[in-house]
Amino acid sequence: MKASILTIGDEILNGTTIDTNSAYIAKACIAKGISIEGTYSISDSFEGIYKGLTIASTGVQIVFITGGLGPTKDDITKQAMADYFEDEMIFNPDVFEKIEKYFEKRGKKQVELNRKLAMIPSKASLIDNERGTAMGMWFNTPSCQFISMPGVPHEMRHMLDMFVLPRLIEKHKLPKIIYKYLMTSGIGESSIYEKIEDLEANFPHDVHLAYLPNLGNVKLRLSTIVNDENETTAAKELENIREQINMRIAKHVFSYDPDETLGEVVGQILTDRNKTISTAESCTGGYISHLLTSVPGSSAYFEGAIVAYSYDFKENLLQVKHETLNTVGAVSEETVLEMLTGLLDRTGTDYGIAVSGIAGPGGGTPDKPVGTVWIAVGSKDKMTARCFQLTTQRDYNIKISAHIALNMLRNFILDNES
Amino acid sequence: MKASILTIGDEILNGTTIDTNSAYIAKACIAKGISIEGTYSISDSFEGIYKGLTIASTGVQIVFITGGLGPTKDDITKQAMADYFEDEMIFNPDVFEKIEKYFEKRGKKQVELNRKLAMIPSKASLIDNERGTAMGMWFNTPSCQFISMPGVPHEMRHMLDMFVLPRLIEKHKLPKIIYKYLMTSGIGESSIYEKIEDLEANFPHDVHLAYLPNLGNVKLRLSTIVNDENETTAAKELENIREQINMRIAKHVFSYDPDETLGEVVGQILTDRNKTISTAESCTGGYISHLLTSVPGSSAYFEGAIVAYSYDFKENLLQVKHETLNTVGAVSEETVLEMLTGLLDRTGTDYGIAVSGIAGPGGGTPDKPVGTVWIAVGSKDKMTARCFQLTTQRDYNIKISAHIALNMLRNFILDNES
Repeated sequence: MKASILTIGDEILNGTTIDTNSAYIAKACIAKGISIEGTYSISDSFEGIYKGLTIASTGVQIVFITGGLGPTKDDITKQAMADYFEDEMIFNPDVFEKIEKYFEKRGKKQVELNRKLAMIPSKASLIDNERGTAMGMWFNTPSCQFISMPGVPHEMRHMLDMFVLPRLIEKHKLPKIIYKYLMTSGIGESSIYEKIEDLEANFPHDVHLAYLPNLGNVKLRLSTIVNDENETTAAKELENIREQINMRIAKHVFSYDPDETLGEVVGQILTDRNKTISTAESCTGGYISHLLTSVPGSSAYFEGAIVAYSYDFKENLLQVKHETLNTVGAVSEETVLEMLTGLLDRTGTDYGIAVSGIAGPGGGTPDKPVGTVWIAVGSKDKMTARCFQLTTQRDYNIKISAHIALNMLRNFILDNES
Repeated sequence: MKASILTIGDEILNGTTIDTNSAYIAKACIAKGISIEGTYSISDSFEGIYKGLTIASTGVQIVFITGGLGPTKDDITKQAMADYFEDEMIFNPDVFEKIEKYFEKRGKKQVELNRKLAMIPSKASLIDNERGTAMGMWFNTPSCQFISMPGVPHEMRHMLDMFVLPRLIEKHKLPKIIYKYLMTSGIGESSIYEKIEDLEANFPHDVHLAYLPNLGNVKLRLSTIVNDENETTAAKELENIREQINMRIAKHVFSYDPDETLGEVVGQILTDRNKTISTAESCTGGYISHLLTSVPGSSAYFEGAIVAYSYDFKENLLQVKHETLNTVGAVSEETVLEMLTGLLDRTGTDYGIAVSGIAGPGGGTPDKPVGTVWIAVGSKDKMTARCFQLTTQRDYNIKISAHIALNMLRNFILDNES
C-alpha cells in the first residue's frame, strides 16, 4: 500500500516551524507496511490546497493531511476540501454540542463561532480529537482515501495512533509490529555491534534490530511483524533474542523499558535497598548531581554533591592530600579514590561517585590528553576506579562521563550484593 | 520572487531523518524577499526525481534541491538531472583533481571511483562545497533556475550562505536584511511585550521585532530591509531602537550577541574583575554549577559547588542553623541567606549564589506551593535575596531557577561596582 503526506500551513513554508509530523507519520506507516511515496507542504490557500491534494494523491491509495484546521484557518481548509470533493458544508449538531461543552468548561460562550466550527463537509466521515477542538476528516474516493488531521503534533499523534491507524489496520488487514527494547549506557554502537555480530547474522529473517543512539546511551530496538495467530510465539522469540543480546552486554543494559532514564534506574536501586548517595565531581561540574536530581522524589536517597573544581576545594572539602595533587595530579586514580573517601567520610552516605578529568578543549598534556577521565564508585568498605579516554568535545565529555559514572555505580551495587 | 524546495532522499520518506534543511532555506529566503510556494520530498529514484522536478518547478522561478548527492546515490541523481535537462554527463578535470586531493589527504587512492565522482552534467554550473566532496550544481532554464545542494545540513548551510544566496542577491538585486539582538533572561515573552508595547506600536513600518524564546531566555531580534544607500543610517536606527528597548528591561538584557550564553557573560564579568565564585544549590541540584562549568576555561573563576539536598548537608556543609530549618523551613529567605553565608565562609570565593525551592511535582504546601524558589546572591559584605513563584514542572523549574540566579548575580556585580 502506498501513501503520501500533505502538510498545509504557512508556518512550514516560512521556516518558523520544522515539520516533525511527517517523520512521525512515515515511521508509523512503515511499521505497518505502508510506504511513503512523497511528502508535500503547501500554503493555507484555496489554490495551494487544491494543488496539494492533486499532487499528493497521484499514484497512492492514502493521503495523510495535517494542519490547516486551526480556529483562524478552519473555514478555508474545510471549504477548500469540500470544493475539491465537489461537496457542500452542512451543520453537524454532534460536533456543535462537543465544541459548546469544550468552551463552556473554559467559561466561554460563543454561539456564532461554535456554529461556524460545526460546519463540516457532508461527505466527510469524522475522526474524534480527544486532545483539541478540530475534528479529523476522512474522505473516500474510488481510488484514494484522504485523512485530514490537525497540525498540532500532540493532537495529530494521538489521533493517528488511536483512531486512524486502527481503522486502516482493520480495513486493510495491515500487519502488526511488536517491539522489545534494551537500554544501554557507556558503550558505543560499533562496540555493541562487534559483540553481537554473530547473533545478529543468525536472527530469523523477520526480526529487525535498530540501534538508536542518544547522548551517553544507545537504545536497541528489536521488532518483528506478527498476526493474531503467531503474536504470542513471536513475542517469546523476541524476548529470547533480547536475553541472548543481554548476556553479551549485560553490564551496559540498565533497563528493558524504553522510557526509563539511568537516573531513574539508579534511584530505584537505592530506594529498594533503602540506601543513600552523594557525589564528588570535578570535570562533570555537577552534571551527575543534575541527572540524579532530575528524578522526582530523589531527595529520598540523594543527599548532595560536592563539586570540587579547584585544588582548594578538593583539599578542604574532600580531604584530598596536597601531596597527591602535587605528585600524581588531580586527574589520577589516587585523587579520585581520595575524593571518594573524603566524600563518604564527610557525608556519611552509603554510596558515592567521584570523577576527575580533563573535559577540554584546553588543559591536556602528552601524558593526560583532553578526554582523560578517572571515575571511582563505591562505599566506605569497597571502592573501584577506572580510567576512560573520551573525546576532545567538552560538552560531550561532561555528559558521557556522567552517564558512565552512574552506570558504574549501578553495576557496583548489583555486583556487591550479598 | 517565488521559489520551492525539493528534498531528495529515502531517509526523509521513511521517517528516520527529520527535514531541517527546508526550514533553514525557507528562513534565509524570506529574509531576502523570496517566498516559498511549496516544499516537496521524493524518493531517490529516476521516477521520483523526474516527478519532483516537474512539480517543484511549476509556477516558481527558483527550485532549491537538497540531498541525493551522497557517494552511493551520486550517480543516479546526477544522471536523473542530466536526463531531465536533456543533458549529457562529461568528465570534469577540476572536480577530479579536487576529489583526488581530498581522498589523498585521508590516505585513500581510488582512481576509478574518483573518475565517476567527477562525471558532471555538462550544462551544470558548479557550486563549490568547502565542507565535503559533493559539488553543488546550478541549472538555468528560460523560466526557472534549479540549485542542487548536498543534504548534509552543515554542508548545505555553508554552501547556501556562502555561494548560493550571494549569487542570487547579485543576480536579482535582492534586498538585504540587517539584524540587531537583545539576549534576555528571567523575563517571559508576555512581560517583555507589556513593557515595550508602546515602543513597538511606534516602530518605523519596516522594522520588525521577533520574540525567540528558549528555556530561561528570550532572544529579541530586530530586523529591517536595507539597500546600499541607506544601510548605515538604518543600522543606526536599529541600534537606537535597541537602546530604547534596553532601557525598559535593562536588568534582563545580558548580551547583544545572539551566540553568547548567560554562563559565558557571568564568566567574562568575573574574569575582567579577577573575581571567583561558588554556588550552594538545593532545588537546582547542581544545574547552576553545570551552566558555569560548560564554559571552557571556567576553572579560572569557578571554584566549586555544594549541592545540599538534605538537611544534614545544609547544616554540616553550609552551617545553616538547625533552628532555622525547623522554624521557617528550608525554602525561606533565612535559609538561603545562611546557605550563602556558610558557602562564602567555607570557600572564600568573592561571590556566591544560593538557591532553595520546591521543584515539584511533590512537596508543595498551601503556604509554599510547588514552584516556590528562594535565591540569594552576593558577597561577604552584601547579599540580596528574592522569592520567585514558578511553575509545576520540575525540569522547567530547575532550569529557569538556574538562569534567574545567574542573572541576579550578574546584576548584583554590575550594580555594586564602585
